[in-house]
Amino acid sequence: MSENISTFVKTADWKAEKHVPAIDAPAEAKAGEPVEISVAVGKEIPHPNTVEHHISWLALHFVPAGSQTSIELGRFEFSAHGQAAKANEGPAHVAPSVKTTVCLAASGTLHATAYCNIHGLWTSSAAISVVQA
Amino acid sequence: MSENISTFVKTADWKAEKHVPAIDAPAEAKAGEPVEISVAVGKEIPHPNTVEHHISWLALHFVPAGSQTSIELGRFEFSAHGQAAKANEGPAHVAPSVKTTVCLAASGTLHATAYCNIHGLWTSSAAISVVQA
Amino acid sequence: MSENISTFVKTADWKAEKHVPAIDAPAEAKAGEPVEISVAVGKEIPHPNTVEHHISWLALHFVPAGSQTSIELGRFEFSAHGQAAKANEGPAHVAPSVKTTVCLAASGTLHATAYCNIHGLWTSSAAISVVQA
Amino acid sequence: MSENISTFVKTADWKAEKHVPAIDAPAEAKAGEPVEISVAVGKEIPHPNTVEHHISWLALHFVPAGSQTSIELGRFEFSAHGQAAKANEGPAHVAPSVKTTVCLAASGTLHATAYCNIHGLWTSSAAISVVQA
Repeated sequence: MSENISTFVKTADWKAEKHVPAIDAPAEAKAGEPVEISVAVGKEIPHPNTVEHHISWLALHFVPAGSQTSIELGRFEFSAHGQAAKANEGPAHVAPSVKTTVCLAASGTLHATAYCNIHGLWTSSAAISVVQA
Repeated sequence: MSENISTFVKTADWKAEKHVPAIDAPAEAKAGEPVEISVAVGKEIPHPNTVEHHISWLALHFVPAGSQTSIELGRFEFSAHGQAAKANEGPAHVAPSVKTTVCLAASGTLHATAYCNIHGLWTSSAAISVVQA
Repeated sequence: MSENISTFVKTADWKAEKHVPAIDAPAEAKAGEPVEISVAVGKEIPHPNTVEHHISWLALHFVPAGSQTSIELGRFEFSAHGQAAKANEGPAHVAPSVKTTVCLAASGTLHATAYCNIHGLWTSSAAISVVQA
Repeated sequence: MSENISTFVKTADWKAEKHVPAIDAPAEAKAGEPVEISVAVGKEIPHPNTVEHHISWLALHFVPAGSQTSIELGRFEFSAHGQAAKANEGPAHVAPSVKTTVCLAASGTLHATAYCNIHGLWTSSAAISVVQA
């Protein structure tokens, strides 16, 4: 079977490799109740945040247990990396970190993906157990 | 002068109109230090979150004081609104609410924009004073 | 009334100002039949396409005649601007230009918006007359 | 090794499976010269385009020959799928099809990814040979 884009989605331990997104989510949630989930690159090792080298976006997907289909929950673009501004303005930066709120109806796995403009696609995952309320 | 898209970016008090994004940011920040900013639709009046009617995205911009140019800090897409899933999976939802972290170098105004798939573009703003550290 | 983000969406003649997106669409279309629409920055005057200075995205909206609500048709991100690559790879660039296909049911106005990472938001519009088939 | 999101990026022959994006690109291009590339879902078998079931976005990546890193060229969101409109307006639709223009400096592989709001992530690829001008 030939290569496809999956071949180029890299993974590693986020504590050791700065590109890997870290997911902070509770291990257990109640069905249909809101849960805050944090996704961040650089939780342990900061990633550069410059015009030349930065994290462009983070995406968060969910795959229900037993499913073969990934559901996109959200996608978060980070647009300001200190690009040139007028002298009196000073640059703005946004960190590659986001908190979002989801409601799930069944257990499954959260998958975060990060895109670095130099080093490409990275991913990590976290299981979440959903109990009926 | 003819109409342009600005004509269709609506604003109102977010406490009275459910489409308007609410910005939660400190009134004052230190230059170059990280500040968490929350942007949410439905803080006071919930907005529907169904496949037929939902908030598709929120964007956050910053305009330094005295500037005529808007800097995009981030754009946040909300993709899961309970679309049909297999019987054993149950739907997933993501709320139109996001927390992000920014570093600013000068005072200015934050502008949030929300897009509802039925009711279009809405905006609100919040001043932020940046003091030199 | 206070300023909102609309204040910072700039417009001009795209033949004279390089940031303004040019819309190429037929003046007349048949209801429900596909029409190809081109949106491009730099049709007359090229815009830089470097990591430091580039067009990040183009959006295309439609406002039916008599409506106050803008419908987002699409949003197109341009991600590759020659960022550093390994010596044997060479950089990739994508031009701020896109062709997309739409079906409309009523007459109205197309609005294109462009975002330059240095010079912010720019817009232009084009009327389209939709005749019943 | 545990599952990651790559496990859920599906592929198939686009002539037989309606979700798979078809890439139309020349087999050969000159280094640094613009090439138009088309990416479309539904080239052979139409995909539904309704609020309930549609293609949300297409992304286009490039992997230089011998590289392990995917470069995002662009990402194209399709936002209008006939959502409810006022009686006198009629719905708007955008097709899951886009043409964009790229400049490459080396040979490699184009990868298109499509996201269906019900059936998840799909991909296909096409080799492109870049000759020095």
